[in-house]
Amino acid sequence: MAERTNAAGSRPVVPLEHLGSNPNPGVISHFRIKTLSHLQEDNLIMKLVVLRIGHRPVRDKRITTHVGLTARALGASGMLLAADDPKIKESIDDVTRAWGGDFFVETDVNWREAIKQWKEQGGMVVHLTMYGLNLPDVTSEMQNRDLMIIVGAEKVPPAIYDLADLNVAAGSQPHSEVAALALLLDHLQNGRELARTFEGERREIVPMRKGKRVIEMT
Amino acid sequence: MAERTNAAGSRPVVPLEHLGSNPNPGVISHFRIKTLSHLQEDNLIMKLVVLRIGHRPVRDKRITTHVGLTARALGASGMLLAADDPKIKESIDDVTRAWGGDFFVETDVNWREAIKQWKEQGGMVVHLTMYGLNLPDVTSEMQNRDLMIIVGAEKVPPAIYDLADLNVAAGSQPHSEVAALALLLDHLQNGRELARTFEGERREIVPMRKGKRVIEMT
Repeated sequence: MAERTNAAGSRPVVPLEHLGSNPNPGVISHFRIKTLSHLQEDNLIMKLVVLRIGHRPVRDKRITTHVGLTARALGASGMLLAADDPKIKESIDDVTRAWGGDFFVETDVNWREAIKQWKEQGGMVVHLTMYGLNLPDVTSEMQNRDLMIIVGAEKVPPAIYDLADLNVAAGSQPHSEVAALALLLDHLQNGRELARTFEGERREIVPMRKGKRVIEMT
Repeated sequence: MAERTNAAGSRPVVPLEHLGSNPNPGVISHFRIKTLSHLQEDNLIMKLVVLRIGHRPVRDKRITTHVGLTARALGASGMLLAADDPKIKESIDDVTRAWGGDFFVETDVNWREAIKQWKEQGGMVVHLTMYGLNLPDVTSEMQNRDLMIIVGAEKVPPAIYDLADLNVAAGSQPHSEVAALALLLDHLQNGRELARTFEGERREIVPMRKGKRVIEMT
């Protein structure tokens, strides 16, 4: 995709360092700088980051991996995981290496600190929960904001319901945080994220009505 | 919701008996008749059923439960599970009892037979896969059809890619079958499913910007 400047290029860059306890912030900054330029190239005007809380290693491994992969595929810049589970990061990083883009995963994040810093830097914090206001009613107030999207597992600290600027529901029925995240990202971006391409991929799919075709880059 | 007749009321009813090996088809028919009337009341003109294949008991328990709950919350009539795992049905039926509606789950379904019968009765069979045509490009050809939506786990029998009338992708990137199902159901119904209400619920949420409020019916 050709380089261009756009609204995102002239916006104040929200620094993302020190959100977590990662011992190697240099690497993280590197990812994040790439992430921001990627957002600009795609001409998206929002920065979207997922904060995954309540994750229990082993039990939530697959669901949290689905949360991360969904975030990546549908246009988020990265996932902050408020748990010490490096295997989640490994699986998602493997996908990014094969399929492109520069989605970041940071583990062992202090969620209170992450929320506080995001707000201090002017970002909006939303919490996906069936108890929140219905997505179609609040989509417009989230658009054009830098969004931290909190995605809880079964147990969420009660403080989250008040710390978030907005609790948002994908329908007021119990279903899945993976589904809710997908709907939020899709509505925010009006479906444009489904046509997004990823740079630097090693594999590319040729969409087919029947059968299956993949191009392996060498 | 007031009873009314509409386009759906005058369409040929696709009989749904005998799709699986359930020893008690009478009970299933009962569920299905209720399901059809529910569709009519909601003024939806499609019948949407999920066929879950490749499910491995234990390993896929939580993801398949998320698939079923997402199908229910986002307007499908039921889920056919091509595996013998009655616990999945129990968890989803528990949710339906508490939160309303008449979503059905049938286990131990013969997937080949289910696909064959669906097609014979004029329904369309679509398979959700990252290798398919992109959702925004094919949404209109799925709308106003009775859809069987095949949702595979990690391993899907290769025959599925050809048996389906259409392979459809929610973006050509790996992510989650739960997310893909949510996006398909949402795009098909233009987001109307998020405002849907469920009859007979014991609990109802009062949507809140902050905090949490639930009404328990007694």
